[in-house]
Amino acid sequence: MFKQITIIGFGLLGSSIAHNVNNHKLAEKLICVDADQLVCDKVLSLGLADEATTNVAAGVQDSDLIIICTPVGAMGRIAREMAGHLKEGAIVTDVGSVKKAVIKDMQHHLPANIHFVPGHPIAGTAESGPESGFASLFDGRWCILTPLEHTELRPIEKLTQFWESCGCNIEIMDAERHDLILGITSHLPHLIAYTIVGTATDLEDDIKSDVIKFSASGFRDFTRIAASDPTMWRDVFLNNKDSVLEVLGRFTEDLTALQKAIRKADGDYLYQSFDKTRNIRRAIIDAGQAEYNEPEKEKKLD
Amino acid sequence: MFKQITIIGFGLLGSSIAHNVNNHKLAEKLICVDADQLVCDKVLSLGLADEATTNVAAGVQDSDLIIICTPVGAMGRIAREMAGHLKEGAIVTDVGSVKKAVIKDMQHHLPANIHFVPGHPIAGTAESGPESGFASLFDGRWCILTPLEHTELRPIEKLTQFWESCGCNIEIMDAERHDLILGITSHLPHLIAYTIVGTATDLEDDIKSDVIKFSASGFRDFTRIAASDPTMWRDVFLNNKDSVLEVLGRFTEDLTALQKAIRKADGDYLYQSFDKTRNIRRAIIDAGQAEYNEPEKEKKLD
Repeated sequence: MFKQITIIGFGLLGSSIAHNVNNHKLAEKLICVDADQLVCDKVLSLGLADEATTNVAAGVQDSDLIIICTPVGAMGRIAREMAGHLKEGAIVTDVGSVKKAVIKDMQHHLPANIHFVPGHPIAGTAESGPESGFASLFDGRWCILTPLEHTELRPIEKLTQFWESCGCNIEIMDAERHDLILGITSHLPHLIAYTIVGTATDLEDDIKSDVIKFSASGFRDFTRIAASDPTMWRDVFLNNKDSVLEVLGRFTEDLTALQKAIRKADGDYLYQSFDKTRNIRRAIIDAGQAEYNEPEKEKKLD
Repeated sequence: MFKQITIIGFGLLGSSIAHNVNNHKLAEKLICVDADQLVCDKVLSLGLADEATTNVAAGVQDSDLIIICTPVGAMGRIAREMAGHLKEGAIVTDVGSVKKAVIKDMQHHLPANIHFVPGHPIAGTAESGPESGFASLFDGRWCILTPLEHTELRPIEKLTQFWESCGCNIEIMDAERHDLILGITSHLPHLIAYTIVGTATDLEDDIKSDVIKFSASGFRDFTRIAASDPTMWRDVFLNNKDSVLEVLGRFTEDLTALQKAIRKADGDYLYQSFDKTRNIRRAIIDAGQAEYNEPEKEKKLD
């Protein structure tokens, strides 16, 4: 599909993409770029890439597709470092969880003779590092592309084929809408999960040990999310501030209303609030997005 | 183990206990009591109990163990209805998610010649109804017993054996501590999940459909919790008001601090907040409470 691909940043996503490139032979040659020499060594010893370097300029120069898989806060700098070394006609994309800020940080560095197609595969676990990747991470998951107004059709199509080969379904939307939707589906849930697990972290030690012991009652579902990479998420919140603050405002209003209902012992309000949320769960199951790790599955094993 | 057991309320927990009683022959005879005649019919057709009745008094009269598995709001009334019909020396227990309010509602109805041992098995899925139960629900899960000061040792031991036969580990603590711990590990997480899913429910339709589509990015983990039974959870919040409002206060303070850090673009504060929460996840995995439905497992399949 491509002669040479460069993946910059070999964490969970970078290494999972590498597994797909290798398994499905999506490139003749795969280059790893990572700022950490230990990661480069690991990538080579795992056989994930043909070459590995800490030097962005050297790593991108002959590639037809460059995929940036670092935390979004680093992407502006990386665009600057690669700018003078890109092959004419190369496609540059990323996997960042925010799109407006990434476009703002990268676009002005990139030359006009390459194709910049920002992207975001909606997939992940709380694991990180080059050994955490696995090929099926993207199976049945959405990958959102947010091309710019002047982006040509051909590179969008090629990138679509690439992600489809990794197992993704493709959705195209503008960066503004992406950041709002993901603010609701991803950034707010992560912020809430980090908060609630943080609140528990501050408890007295004897209570905390019981919280861990009895975490199966709801809490542990939050701890999985709150074990996500802190650098990645710091950058998400710094770079999608407006959308996050907007949806957080709505959330806080709704939480305050429920708090008041508890204080006033308003059972009807509580019942109605808890009843209306069941339909969304059903819609998610119907949309085929309720995999993996679901009790629906678990129960069938019984 | 028992001559006759009565289970009152045949939802997920009641029917899962019935599976265990039947599989492990924990009683010669099992009686179902449910306020809904359709549920009674279903229970008999599923072969889950030997007899089924909507009448509490008739259902409990010859039983050595009575387990109340209704929403906690109904337990006071049930204690009143059974009061004059209990066999001397019978053990009465429950599975309610709050303990102080249940004790307050039930204790004064119950005669002195029976043994009241409140309990709470920490297990569940978002499913409900008599067909949702399954035997392994309790495997490796904690069951908390909160005996009263004057409760004799023998019935506590018998109930301990019963729950161990269902697969549980037993922890004994007082009702006050139970309600605080569960306020943190269960009630607050459910309130937060209901809120965030409710916030999404109120979105404009075209945004909502995208929220469902891209729910795999964090949101869907909350929808599973927020699909729990609304009556059960209404009763939990009405009956554990003080503990819930206390932990909700701490949560809101912490969320406000993170909100401020996002607004001020304080990356260091965000990083530190997101980093400290990873240890709790590790502690939960080490405590063997990170099953089922975990990506740790999922990945090994790859």
